Amino acid sequence: MAVNLNPPDPAALKTVAGVELGYAEAGIRKQGRRDLMLMRFAPGTQVAGVFTQNGFAAAPVQVCRERLAQHTEIRALLVNAGNANCGTGEQGLRAALATCEAVAQQLGCTPAEVLPFSTGVILEDLPVDRIVAALPRCVASLAPANWAGAAQAIMTTDTVPKAVSKTAEIGGRTVTVTGMAKGVGMLQPNMATMLAFVATDAKVEPPALRALVREVADASFNRVTVDGDTSTNDSFVLIATGQSGTAAIGRGSPEYARLRDTAIAVAAELAQAIARDGEGATKFVTVQVNGARDDAEALRVARGIANSPLVKTALFASDPNLGRLLMAIGNADMTDFDPARVDLYLGDVQVIDRGGRAASYREEDGVRVMKPAEITIRVELNRGGASTVVWTCDFSYDYVKINAEYRT
Amino acid sequence: MAVNLNPPDPAALKTVAGVELGYAEAGIRKQGRRDLMLMRFAPGTQVAGVFTQNGFAAAPVQVCRERLAQHTEIRALLVNAGNANCGTGEQGLRAALATCEAVAQQLGCTPAEVLPFSTGVILEDLPVDRIVAALPRCVASLAPANWAGAAQAIMTTDTVPKAVSKTAEIGGRTVTVTGMAKGVGMLQPNMATMLAFVATDAKVEPPALRALVREVADASFNRVTVDGDTSTNDSFVLIATGQSGTAAIGRGSPEYARLRDTAIAVAAELAQAIARDGEGATKFVTVQVNGARDDAEALRVARGIANSPLVKTALFASDPNLGRLLMAIGNADMTDFDPARVDLYLGDVQVIDRGGRAASYREEDGVRVMKPAEITIRVELNRGGASTVVWTCDFSYDYVKINAEYRT
Repeated sequence: MAVNLNPPDPAALKTVAGVELGYAEAGIRKQGRRDLMLMRFAPGTQVAGVFTQNGFAAAPVQVCRERLAQHTEIRALLVNAGNANCGTGEQGLRAALATCEAVAQQLGCTPAEVLPFSTGVILEDLPVDRIVAALPRCVASLAPANWAGAAQAIMTTDTVPKAVSKTAEIGGRTVTVTGMAKGVGMLQPNMATMLAFVATDAKVEPPALRALVREVADASFNRVTVDGDTSTNDSFVLIATGQSGTAAIGRGSPEYARLRDTAIAVAAELAQAIARDGEGATKFVTVQVNGARDDAEALRVARGIANSPLVKTALFASDPNLGRLLMAIGNADMTDFDPARVDLYLGDVQVIDRGGRAASYREEDGVRVMKPAEITIRVELNRGGASTVVWTCDFSYDYVKINAEYRT
Repeated sequence: MAVNLNPPDPAALKTVAGVELGYAEAGIRKQGRRDLMLMRFAPGTQVAGVFTQNGFAAAPVQVCRERLAQHTEIRALLVNAGNANCGTGEQGLRAALATCEAVAQQLGCTPAEVLPFSTGVILEDLPVDRIVAALPRCVASLAPANWAGAAQAIMTTDTVPKAVSKTAEIGGRTVTVTGMAKGVGMLQPNMATMLAFVATDAKVEPPALRALVREVADASFNRVTVDGDTSTNDSFVLIATGQSGTAAIGRGSPEYARLRDTAIAVAAELAQAIARDGEGATKFVTVQVNGARDDAEALRVARGIANSPLVKTALFASDPNLGRLLMAIGNADMTDFDPARVDLYLGDVQVIDRGGRAASYREEDGVRVMKPAEITIRVELNRGGASTVVWTCDFSYDYVKINAEYRT
């Protein structure tokens, strides 16, 4: 069902010096599929992350947060699909720590240098034994060129693996940024949450890396929504191995800006891939909001449109249902809102002019621009200078089917 | 599709002294159905209202707000279905005023004593001529016993008319409260919005009536959600004709409390009827939240559960999907939230105990309580003394069908 999204070409995914990837079948929830993935990093690798805001943050998220608050030198990540290790209390924390210890033993590092990630069913105990038993096979398969296979091993209800690579010239060196993501909604807590791992061989000072991961998340994963919910396991980490030979990149430098732009390009493509592969998606939708008073207001309007079930079902039907768009904008709680300033475009067709139906608008033009699998909605609020973009998908029968029939 | 909801028995709907109702076919959007409804009130009738918070408030909402800010003595309401008169700018305001003038002429009152209401398609001009042409037939049919017919005349995609009657002894007199509502979601802006009209023959001081309408709305219509959106035309007015012979009821009196409780009983039943008739509904769901720090927090948690597409599709499937409930609670943005305090019950079955799966919980018990058409979800946050309840429905294939196929 994914909208204009193909599996990554393994040959197009560039290795990142200092990163090796391995995977195995651990039988965590289903047999016969890869569900365990290990990333090993060269000594000196720095990692920064952003994690879910959900109050029921999963055990691995709690462990990651705590470790990255202590130190940023990390030697390995372990990711399992099929079980979220969430709502599992103290036992869940012990389980996450036990898997880190097993990795540390296998790789010869300390447990504190290992970060755990889980995605899958909530409220079930993590099968630590099966994970530990599969670890040696993960280690044996470690190789720099395994990005495509690793991206597949972290999938749950994803239909297409998601991995992207870019390079940039920074400080006289070619720097690579390669990343992978999984998730077919901001949340499908039984079988999917968003995880993303982006690695670069650039050398980055730890404070700059922490700033960078937030800037990149804000411009990519925080711009995508499938159903408006936030999962208990969402995690995005940025890995800098420092193997490219550049000098250490600090905040505010031209090199920082260059690396940020490259990392955003990778992460935005991964974020868009998530919306393209959204549960039941038949349309990929870009919501552009301009002229807001501030960034928060722009995002509120864009998300209001992108998350409205009535807008999403109209998108599914290729129906230029202008009233629903008007309603969604009006619900964004803007101070001193003047409807008579609002313009709205579907693709290149102006449909709303100063708060009312555009005189030039003809229904057949609306129908024409709603037909394709990719649709752009652009709102001009004309009340300030802030803009944003949000990527989403439509709401189809298959969304209900996937989410209603999953456990039956 | 409505869940345990039958049309009102006309014989059970008590007339309200001082209120007459009439209706007619005006052909506003479709032929052969009643779509215009007029309520006439005895001199001295006081009216107070609450209206949508949507920034694109429809023209009739703007007129009502302005009039009720000036004075509370009202002689008539005119309600049309099929056209929302929203996103229609200055011309929409003139159209709403023109219909009030026509009513004033017919009834011999001033236009300022008439309130207009519209529900239906957004961004289309109100057909004033057809409304004015049908008005004499509305007037000719005015009668006190027309509540059931009037409730049908304001419907759009509703499948069942909604009207409720209660009486109470207040100040030595029997006071009647009778009301009607329409709407099958907080918002379906093409063909439905929530309108509710509740009348009593009690005599109420204007400041008390204004307080009363807010208290009643908070305990009834503000507790229902179908899809989390707020329409551009939502309106609820409370009409007090003063014909019962009670002394004028002031705020804070025992009589006020008695009338409030009766009006809430009527309005809550109407609000529940809206959820029971929600678009595509197969389940009627009560979400009870206890132990919140304050009312706003309780409502945030309850609405978070009630509006989550993932919870709603699980309800449709009768699937006790505990992870989704956990996730929805965790997203309610509570300060200092401690997951380990949360208990959760489906019907009488405890499923979550201190943030984790209850040791006593068996999947077959969850399946048993999720099967019926009426389901209660109860959350105990154990962090304060505030409680709330929200009524909602599930999210079915028919929700997508109704909203995707409406214009095709």
